[in-house]
Amino acid sequence: MKEKPFILVTNDDGIQAPGIHALVMELQKIADISVVAPRFERSAVGHAITLSDPIRVEKFQKLDKWEGQAVSGTPADCVKIAINAILDRKPDLVVSGINLGSNTGINVIYSGTVSAATEGAVSGIPSIAISLTTYTDPDFSTAAKFAAKMAMNLYNNPVSDRTLLNINVPNVPEKEIKGVKIARQGMANFAERFERRVDPKNRAYYWLTGAKAKIEEPDDVDDKLIKQNYITVTPLQFNLTDFTKLDSIEERIANL
Amino acid sequence: MKEKPFILVTNDDGIQAPGIHALVMELQKIADISVVAPRFERSAVGHAITLSDPIRVEKFQKLDKWEGQAVSGTPADCVKIAINAILDRKPDLVVSGINLGSNTGINVIYSGTVSAATEGAVSGIPSIAISLTTYTDPDFSTAAKFAAKMAMNLYNNPVSDRTLLNINVPNVPEKEIKGVKIARQGMANFAERFERRVDPKNRAYYWLTGAKAKIEEPDDVDDKLIKQNYITVTPLQFNLTDFTKLDSIEERIANL
Repeated sequence: MKEKPFILVTNDDGIQAPGIHALVMELQKIADISVVAPRFERSAVGHAITLSDPIRVEKFQKLDKWEGQAVSGTPADCVKIAINAILDRKPDLVVSGINLGSNTGINVIYSGTVSAATEGAVSGIPSIAISLTTYTDPDFSTAAKFAAKMAMNLYNNPVSDRTLLNINVPNVPEKEIKGVKIARQGMANFAERFERRVDPKNRAYYWLTGAKAKIEEPDDVDDKLIKQNYITVTPLQFNLTDFTKLDSIEERIANL
Repeated sequence: MKEKPFILVTNDDGIQAPGIHALVMELQKIADISVVAPRFERSAVGHAITLSDPIRVEKFQKLDKWEGQAVSGTPADCVKIAINAILDRKPDLVVSGINLGSNTGINVIYSGTVSAATEGAVSGIPSIAISLTTYTDPDFSTAAKFAAKMAMNLYNNPVSDRTLLNINVPNVPEKEIKGVKIARQGMANFAERFERRVDPKNRAYYWLTGAKAKIEEPDDVDDKLIKQNYITVTPLQFNLTDFTKLDSIEERIANL
C-alpha cells in the first residue's frame, strides 16, 4: 500500500482565513500536510511574484489544531518558497483554497488561488485550486470533503505531469449538490465601473466595481453549471500561446 | 483614408521608465496616444488587479515631450481605469512596454507587461506587449519602431476580436536583426533558489533568485529564436482550459 500523500496547502485569503482551516482539517485525515500561506489576504493578485522585496516567513499556530508558515508574499511566492526553502521534501500534491468566492470564467486570470496551484503545476506537482462560490454565509464542509477526495484520486491514480485542476463548489448543503461535471472556463467579460469619490482633502480616488457581463456561452462553461448546483472541475494549463492564430499572424508578419 | 489610430500606452516598469518614453516618442509619429501607466515599477505582478484599495490617478509630465496619467495600481488596473474612467473614447489599440527584460517562456505568466495587453484584449481591443530582451545597456529604438509598425498593421488590416500579441526584440543594432518570426511560448521552468539572509536584528529573510532551466523544446519557441537575433511575435489567449485533458479528467471524476 502507498504511503500517505504529502500535501502542501496554501491559499490567497491568508493563513487566518476560515477556508484554509476547513481544508486543513479535512486533509489532515488523509495526508501529511504542510501549510505555507500568505500572512494576509492577497486576493486578485494574479500570478504575482515578489522580486524586489525580501520575503519573511513566520510560524503560525491555529489553536491546538495545526501549525503552518505565514509568508509575507503572494500565493505564488508561498509555493515557490515552500518547495525551494521550507519543505524538506517535494510535496506529492499542492492544494490551494478554499477560496471565499468563485474562481470561474475570466476571474481565473486574476485569481491568486489558481496562481498558487499553477505554481505547483509549473514545478511538476499535480495541483488543485478549490473555491466556494459565495461571499456570504460560507459552509466549507462540502468543498473540503471534495478536495480531499480529488486529492486522493490524483495521488492514487497516476496523472500526467503538470495536471492542474480548478474546482468550484456551490455553497449549498451536500444533499443539494447535483453532481460533479467537467467544465470549461467561461469567457464572459466584466462590465466594469470605477466609482469616483473625493477624500477629505478634496482629492479624487476610485474604487473598481462591476458585474459579469452576460454573453452567449456553451452549456458546459463553469458559471452555468455552478448555477445548477454542480461541482465543476476544469483542467487548466499555462502555455498561453494562441495556437489557432499562428498561421494568420505568420502571414501578417510576412507582409509587414 | 482612415483616421490616425488612438492608442492607449502603458507598461509595468512605471511611467518614468525609459522604455515607455521610447515607445511614446515613436507611436506619437503615427497615432493619437494616451499614456496611463503605473506611478512606480510593478514588475512580475502577474495579472493582479486592485480590489481592496482605492486607486489614485495623477497627471505626469515628461519634459516637454508628452503627458500622461500616473496610476497607483497595477498594469491591469491602468488599462481598466483608462478604458472605464479616464479616456473619453475607446482606444483602437493597447500597446504595453517597452519592457526592460524579456517576456518569454514561462515568464509570460508572471508578466505585468503582458497582463496589461491581456486586459486590453479582454475588453475587445487588439493589444500588443513588447519587451526588449536585456537588463543592461538597453537600446529601445528598434523595438519602438517595430511596435509602431505592428500597431499600424493591426489597425489597417482587420483583426479578429481579442487579438493579443507578445513581442520580444533582441537588444542588438537594427542591422543585426535577422528578421521577424512567429514563435510559441516556451515552457522551460525556472531552477529557483531562495537566498537566506539575516537582518541586523538577527531575523531571517529570503531573496528569490534563479535561472531558466534547460529543457528540450521545439525550434520555434520564443527563447530559441531570440538567441538567434530574431524578433519574435507570439499570439496569446486567455482561456486557460486545458482542452486536451477534458476527456481524461471527465473519466476520472466519473470514477471518483
